[in-house]
Amino acid sequence: MKGRFITFEGSEGCGKSTQSRLLYQFLKRKGYNVVYLREPGGVRISEKIRKILLDPDNHIAPLCETLLYMAARAQVVHDVIKPALFKGRIVICDRFLDSTLAYQGFGLGVDINFIRRLGSFATERIKPDLTIFLDLPIKKGLRHRVLFKDRIEKRSYQYHLRVRKGYFKLGRLEPKRIKIVRVDADMRQTQAKIRELVEKHVL
Amino acid sequence: MKGRFITFEGSEGCGKSTQSRLLYQFLKRKGYNVVYLREPGGVRISEKIRKILLDPDNHIAPLCETLLYMAARAQVVHDVIKPALFKGRIVICDRFLDSTLAYQGFGLGVDINFIRRLGSFATERIKPDLTIFLDLPIKKGLRHRVLFKDRIEKRSYQYHLRVRKGYFKLGRLEPKRIKIVRVDADMRQTQAKIRELVEKHVL
Repeated sequence: MKGRFITFEGSEGCGKSTQSRLLYQFLKRKGYNVVYLREPGGVRISEKIRKILLDPDNHIAPLCETLLYMAARAQVVHDVIKPALFKGRIVICDRFLDSTLAYQGFGLGVDINFIRRLGSFATERIKPDLTIFLDLPIKKGLRHRVLFKDRIEKRSYQYHLRVRKGYFKLGRLEPKRIKIVRVDADMRQTQAKIRELVEKHVL
Repeated sequence: MKGRFITFEGSEGCGKSTQSRLLYQFLKRKGYNVVYLREPGGVRISEKIRKILLDPDNHIAPLCETLLYMAARAQVVHDVIKPALFKGRIVICDRFLDSTLAYQGFGLGVDINFIRRLGSFATERIKPDLTIFLDLPIKKGLRHRVLFKDRIEKRSYQYHLRVRKGYFKLGRLEPKRIKIVRVDADMRQTQAKIRELVEKHVL
C-alpha cells in the first residue's frame, strides 16, 4: 500500500465534514492525488444502507446497526479505499471503524472485541495512518443540530457522553494514530492544527 | 428456551417456500402456536435490507453481502425469533444461517470460520433444532425461475453447484440437525417426508 489514509472522528456537530473537506481542498491545491469519502456512504450500496441507518422512523437493534455500518464499510473499502491506497493516493474519510467502536461499542454496549474482530475483516485489515478526533463538548455539538436530527443524533445526552468518553479511551489506546484536536471557535484555527498534524505524520 | 426452531434450506426453486408454508399450516391445524418467517426479511428493517440484496442492479462485494444478510438476521432474531422461542412457540424460518454458509461461504468464497463466528454473534447463539435441506438438482430448480431472476438467482450454474455442494458438506458436519429431503415430483410426497421428520425430531 503506497497511499496514505486519514480519517476524521468525533461527536455530532463537531465540524468533521467541514474540516475534512477543507483538508481535502488544501491537499489537492498542494498537488496531491486525494480521494474524499464519507461514512456510511461513498458508494451506491453504502448510501442505500446509510438511508436505512439514519432514518428516524426505523427501529434497529444494536447488533443489526453494527452489522449495517460494517456492511457499508466493507463495500467502500473494496470499491474505493483499497484500490486508491494501492495506487498511492491519499484517502480522507469522514468517519471509519473508530465510529463503530465509539457509537455502537461504547455508546450502545455492543461487545468491543467483537467489533474489532469484525472490523478487521470488513476493512480487509486496512488501518488509518492518522485519525483526527475532533473534540467538542457534547452540548455545544448538539446545539448545531436543532432543525433536523437523524436517528443517531436523536439519542440521549447520556448516550452522546458515552460516545465521547469512548473516543477518549480509543485515543489513549492508540496515541500514535489517534490525535485529539480540540475544536476552536475559529474554524481556521482548528484547520491549522489539523494541517500541522497531517504534515508531521502523513506527508 | 422452551420453543422449537425449524429452518428450511435449499437451492433456488426447490420449493422451500411452498413446503415450509404447508408445514406451518399443518402445525397450526394441529393446535401448535407457530410463527412463520422468511429470510432475509420478516421485519421492516430486514425487508428493506432484502430489497438491497436482491435488486439485480446492485453490485455488492461478497463481504458486504455477507454482512447485510447477517444484519437482517440479527434484527429478526432480536425482534421475533428469540421472543417467540422464549414463549415456547414453534418458529419456522425459510432460510437461516446455513444459507449464508452455503451461498456466501461455499458459493462466493467468504471465509467459512468468519461466517460461523459472525453468525453465532448475530443469532445470539440460537440454533435450529431441525433444518430441512430440500435437495433438487440445480437445473431442475433454476428452470422454475425463467421470467424473473433476482440478483442471487442470476448467478452462474457453477455458482449454484458450489452452493448445493456446500449444503451437502454442512449436512455431513451436522447430520443430527440437518436432514436432507429429496424433492419429489409430487409435492405431497415431499411434505409427507418433512412431517415425518418434524414429528420424530421436534414435536
